[in-house]
Amino acid sequence: MSASSPILLTPGPLTTAPATREAMLRDWGSWDGEFNRMTGRVCAALLAVVHGEGEYVCVPMQGSGTFAVEAALGTLVPRDACVLVPHNGAYCARLVRILERMGIAHVTLPLAEDEPALASAIEAAFLRDPRITHVAQVHLETSAGLLNPLDEIARVCARHGKRLIVDAMSSFGAVPIDLRGSGIDALVSASGKCLEGVPGMGFVIVRRALLEQCAGRAPSLALDLHDQWVYMEKTTQWRFTPPTHVVAALSCALDAFVAQGGQPARAARYARNRATLIESMTALGFVPFLPAAVQSDIIVTFHAPHDPAWRFAELYAAVREAGYILYPGKLTEVDTFRVGCIGAIDEEAMRGAVAAIGLAIERLGIRVA
Amino acid sequence: MSASSPILLTPGPLTTAPATREAMLRDWGSWDGEFNRMTGRVCAALLAVVHGEGEYVCVPMQGSGTFAVEAALGTLVPRDACVLVPHNGAYCARLVRILERMGIAHVTLPLAEDEPALASAIEAAFLRDPRITHVAQVHLETSAGLLNPLDEIARVCARHGKRLIVDAMSSFGAVPIDLRGSGIDALVSASGKCLEGVPGMGFVIVRRALLEQCAGRAPSLALDLHDQWVYMEKTTQWRFTPPTHVVAALSCALDAFVAQGGQPARAARYARNRATLIESMTALGFVPFLPAAVQSDIIVTFHAPHDPAWRFAELYAAVREAGYILYPGKLTEVDTFRVGCIGAIDEEAMRGAVAAIGLAIERLGIRVA
Ligand SMILES: Cc1ncc(COP(=O)(O)O)c(C=O)c1O
Ligand SMILES: Cc1ncc(COP(=O)(O)O)c(C=O)c1O
Repeated sequence: MSASSPILLTPGPLTTAPATREAMLRDWGSWDGEFNRMTGRVCAALLAVVHGEGEYVCVPMQGSGTFAVEAALGTLVPRDACVLVPHNGAYCARLVRILERMGIAHVTLPLAEDEPALASAIEAAFLRDPRITHVAQVHLETSAGLLNPLDEIARVCARHGKRLIVDAMSSFGAVPIDLRGSGIDALVSASGKCLEGVPGMGFVIVRRALLEQCAGRAPSLALDLHDQWVYMEKTTQWRFTPPTHVVAALSCALDAFVAQGGQPARAARYARNRATLIESMTALGFVPFLPAAVQSDIIVTFHAPHDPAWRFAELYAAVREAGYILYPGKLTEVDTFRVGCIGAIDEEAMRGAVAAIGLAIERLGIRVA
Repeated sequence: MSASSPILLTPGPLTTAPATREAMLRDWGSWDGEFNRMTGRVCAALLAVVHGEGEYVCVPMQGSGTFAVEAALGTLVPRDACVLVPHNGAYCARLVRILERMGIAHVTLPLAEDEPALASAIEAAFLRDPRITHVAQVHLETSAGLLNPLDEIARVCARHGKRLIVDAMSSFGAVPIDLRGSGIDALVSASGKCLEGVPGMGFVIVRRALLEQCAGRAPSLALDLHDQWVYMEKTTQWRFTPPTHVVAALSCALDAFVAQGGQPARAARYARNRATLIESMTALGFVPFLPAAVQSDIIVTFHAPHDPAWRFAELYAAVREAGYILYPGKLTEVDTFRVGCIGAIDEEAMRGAVAAIGLAIERLGIRVA
C-alpha cells in the first residue's frame, strides 16, 4: 500500500472495498426509476439490518451523520419535551449543542469518558426529574470507543414510557441491534461507517406511528424528516437532489455486507481486528484507555506515551508514510490517540499498521512504557 | 451509449466526465492534510470563478444545494429582517418555504413563470415596502430555464442598501458572475451543476465582513455557515465528516473546468448545446416555453404537444431506451417537459437526444404541431 493511497484506520471515512468505489463510475438521474428503485432497496436493506421491517421506516438524509441526528431531533421531539442526554463523550456533547440550538429543554447525566451509561443511572434520572420525556442516547461513543448498554437502556425507557432516540452512527451494522419490541423509537446512522460505504448521507430508522405525528414540526426545511419521508413515499424520489454516487456506493456496500454474512460476520471481523490491534499494541507497551468491559470493536483509544519527545503529529506523519492513517484523540482530560478497526480491512492491515507504529516510535526515539 | 448508462439531460445530477468519476476511486481521511489541502484548493478555485478573492470567502456545506441555501438564509439573515423574494418559479417558492420555517418576515414579488425579475420592479417593491432589508434572488430559475438579470438587480440592491443573497445553483460556472463591486453579499451553488461534479455538497460564497457578524445566529447546528467557516479557518478541516469522494470529484471537475477555458468556455459549450437543441426540436415541431430573451443556456422547457395521445412518461421511457434521460416539466400552469443542456456533453449528444425524441414520437404516434 503506497503512501498516496493509504489505509484508513479512522472511524469513517474509512477504507472501502474497490467494488464500492467502482459503483460510483456511472451517473444516475435522480428522477429515474432505476435510481429510485436502488434507493428503495437500500432503505429496505437498512431496515433489515436491525429487524425494523413493518413497524419502522427508513428515511435517508443528505449530508453527514450529524445532519441526520439533527433531523431526527428536530422532527421527532416536540418543543415542550425534555430530553435526557447521558453524557460520556464528544458526540453526546453534540446532541446537547443541537438541542440548545433548537431551544429544547434537556438535562444531562454527566459521566466520565470511560464510564458507560447504566440503565440504573438513567432510571434514577427519570425518578429525580419527572419532566424528562425523551432520551437521546449515543450507542457507541466514538470519542473513546465506548459501548453503552443499549438493550438495558431501551428497556428502562420503555418501562418508564420515555421516547428513545439513538445515535447509532458508529455501531449500526456491526453491533447487534434488534428493534423488535425494543423500546427504541429512532436509530440514526450514516453511509460511511460500519456499512463501509462512502460518506455523504445519513439515515434515520424510525417508528412509523411516531413519524406520522410529526408533520410540520421541524424548524428546518432541509432537515425535515417527515417531509422527506412523505415525499419519498409518494414519489419514490428524494425531495432534493440525492448524492447519487454515494447512494450507489452504499447499495454496493450493502450487497457485500449481506453476502459476507451480515451483522454477525461484520462484528466478528471487527472483533478480530480489535483483538489483533490491542494485542500487538500492548506488546509495544501501549495502554488502552478503556477497560475491556466497555471497549467496543470499532475504535480503540490508547494513552499517549509519557515520554516528553512524544508528538502525535510526528507519529501520524511517519505511519502515514508507511501507508496507514491514524486518528487523533478526542478526549477532554487525557492525552490519547485512536486507531479504528472498521472498514474493508482485516487483521493483516492491523498488524501492518502496528508494525509501522513500532518502527516509527523506534525511529522517533519515543519510549512508550 | 447503452440504456444501462444513459446520458443525463437533467440539470444536476448530470453526465460527468470519466476522469471526474475516476477521482472517486480512492478513499481519503478527513483529518488528513492531503484531503484538507484539496478542500482548500477547491474553495479557492470556486472563489476564482466569480472573482471573489479577497473580499469573499467560500464555505462548503454537506448535503444538496437546498441545504446550502438554507444555511445561507439561516446564518446571514437577522431574525428581524424582511426579505423580498422575486417569485417566478419553484426554486423561488422554496426560498419562501425556508423563510417561513425560520419565521423570517418576507414579501414576494409575484411574477409569471416566463417573466424575469426586472430591477425596476424590485426597486418599486423597495419603495412600496420600506421594511425590506434583504433580497433573496434566484439567478436562473431552473423550473423554466429563465435567466433573471442579476447585474441590474445587484445594482439596485446596492443603491438602496439592501443585502442580496443569490441562489446561483444552476448558473454558477456557466453564466458570468463578477463579484467585484457587485452589491452581491452571498452566492449559493452546488457541486453537481454547471461545474460538472457529482452531487453531494453545496457551497456559499459570502462577503467575509458579513459572515464575521453572524456568529451564533443560525437556528441549526448542521447548517450553521459561520460555525463551519470558523472551524475550517482554524483547522483546515470540515466540522463534520465531509463527503470525501464528492469533494475529490469536484476537485477534478474544477481542474477540467479551468483547463477547458473556465466560465467563458463553459458558457460557449452550453450555448451551442442549447442552440442545437432548440433548432432541432423546433424542426420536429416542438415549441419552447420561454421567449428567447430570457431563455438560458442551461435547460429548455418545451410545451407538451396538444395531441391527446401525449404521455410524458411514454416519451421518457422510449428516449431512455435509446440512452437519454429527459426531465419532466416543473411549471404550475402549462403542461411542459424539459431538456437540460449541461454536463460533460456536446452538440452531438443533443442531436442524438433529439433524434431519439423524433423516433419516439413517431413510434408513439404523437402529432407534435
Ligand atoms: C457516535 C457518533 N455520532 C455522530 C457522529 C457524527 O457524524 P458526522 O461526522 O458524519 O456528522 C459521529 C462521527 O463519527 C459519531 O461517531
Ligand atoms: C435554482 C435552483 N435552486 C435550488 C436548487 C436545489 O438544489 P438541490 O436539489 O441540490 O437541493 C436547484 C436544483 O436544481 C436549482 O436549480
